[in-house]
Amino acid sequence: MRIRIDLAYDGTDFHGWASQPGLRTVQGELEAALATVLRTPGVAVVCAGRTDTGVHARGQVAHLDADDALVAAAAGRSSLSPLDALLRRLNGVLPADIRVHGVTAAPDGFDARFSALWRRYAYRIADADAAADPLLRRHVVGWPRPLDVGSMNAGAALLVGEHDFAAFCKHREGATTIRTLLDLQWRRDSAGLATATVRADAFCHHMVRSLMGCLVAIGEGRREPSWAGEILAATVRDPAVANLPAQGLTLEEVGYPADADLAARAEQSRRVRTL
Amino acid sequence: MRIRIDLAYDGTDFHGWASQPGLRTVQGELEAALATVLRTPGVAVVCAGRTDTGVHARGQVAHLDADDALVAAAAGRSSLSPLDALLRRLNGVLPADIRVHGVTAAPDGFDARFSALWRRYAYRIADADAAADPLLRRHVVGWPRPLDVGSMNAGAALLVGEHDFAAFCKHREGATTIRTLLDLQWRRDSAGLATATVRADAFCHHMVRSLMGCLVAIGEGRREPSWAGEILAATVRDPAVANLPAQGLTLEEVGYPADADLAARAEQSRRVRTL
Repeated sequence: MRIRIDLAYDGTDFHGWASQPGLRTVQGELEAALATVLRTPGVAVVCAGRTDTGVHARGQVAHLDADDALVAAAAGRSSLSPLDALLRRLNGVLPADIRVHGVTAAPDGFDARFSALWRRYAYRIADADAAADPLLRRHVVGWPRPLDVGSMNAGAALLVGEHDFAAFCKHREGATTIRTLLDLQWRRDSAGLATATVRADAFCHHMVRSLMGCLVAIGEGRREPSWAGEILAATVRDPAVANLPAQGLTLEEVGYPADADLAARAEQSRRVRTL
Repeated sequence: MRIRIDLAYDGTDFHGWASQPGLRTVQGELEAALATVLRTPGVAVVCAGRTDTGVHARGQVAHLDADDALVAAAAGRSSLSPLDALLRRLNGVLPADIRVHGVTAAPDGFDARFSALWRRYAYRIADADAAADPLLRRHVVGWPRPLDVGSMNAGAALLVGEHDFAAFCKHREGATTIRTLLDLQWRRDSAGLATATVRADAFCHHMVRSLMGCLVAIGEGRREPSWAGEILAATVRDPAVANLPAQGLTLEEVGYPADADLAARAEQSRRVRTL
């Protein structure tokens, strides 16, 4: 059976999602926990958004294919359903900086990565207008100067839509950099934090952090809002655009279509990504 | 001059507020940072609420008496005012788990401890009805069973007011345990966390954490709301009341009277505390 896993993690002490020999990664810890609970070696999970070193997640989604008999055996004599028992046992084995929120039977055609319609990230900054909160310091970036949310939103509006985002992507030979940016909006919350919501069908490598670097230059007043449109139009990496630190970035939610459309969506995504 | 310092800290890695030889404490770190910045040994600070090991603060208040010449010298050739320069330099020297939010000239008669009218704490629980958020795990306690906020509030209502809280206090010979509990209210936020707001003129040792232990027993359905009133009336520590973990507790705010009333309030508090 294919199993969907919903999970959250504090990325501070991980070398990102993807397994790397000798390094502590979210995928590595999750696969090790699954191997322990299911009593089988070689568990492989696939996730919706492969987060970089230091990036957090509240709404990461992954899937794995597991033998029904192993899932039933893992539940043992628990009074819970096999998947609820698996959820409980996983959280018992996982370190405190990863928490699993859901273990469910994936509907037909579900693929955590290729069925996804969009990924939504948040980027959080405590600028000079906000009091630094040490309780949130692991997932909020401090910024020494005040940021103007209005001008950042004026710049952001020029980036929304389907574009070639090559100017904001780490170059990778042969990979498309055309993406649809569905939302890009800053707001200041009651505690004074400036938070960006960034939603797209998919992101290329470093894209959110370089979008943030561009908009923060505008928010500081070093650039005009129109600069965001100029950078985008150039379609080449501009060294004037910095990548903001990973620490402020959190994968908040992944959107999927209705069950009936999962397989078609996966088919379409696979075609686009392998262009 | 007397200086007021407003500060926040993540209590996880501190042995509480009060200096102890060989242990990392908030007072110890703050006094060391002040000694560095003011270039003088033997700086002594007094705080509004001496938090225990593992307890956090967003709104701690402290004062110190410093020589005007040392404050002016610490500012050096900064373009900021001397106290703003002191604020900036303190945050440069302090570790990331302590942040100073304000350094101001204290009004006449101000005493961080004795002038305070009230202290407000929050206690945060992610119970079985909330998804554990690894990004908040350092200041939110996980609770394996669901809590009923309505019945906890029914119990809490029996505790508000001026009472002898000996049943909720660690016994200390000769110290009064009469306190005025101004607010005690639970609410469930949009993320599903159950948060208690607890405000009193002052708290005796372990009082908030044992109030929480009493109410959580009610919230789980192990006890009726009326039990809170019975425990209070007994005025002796009841072993059935557990102290909840320090990790969930945060000192959020300290209230002071208008400047004209600071000295009188301090005088009154000193008299009560030394009864």
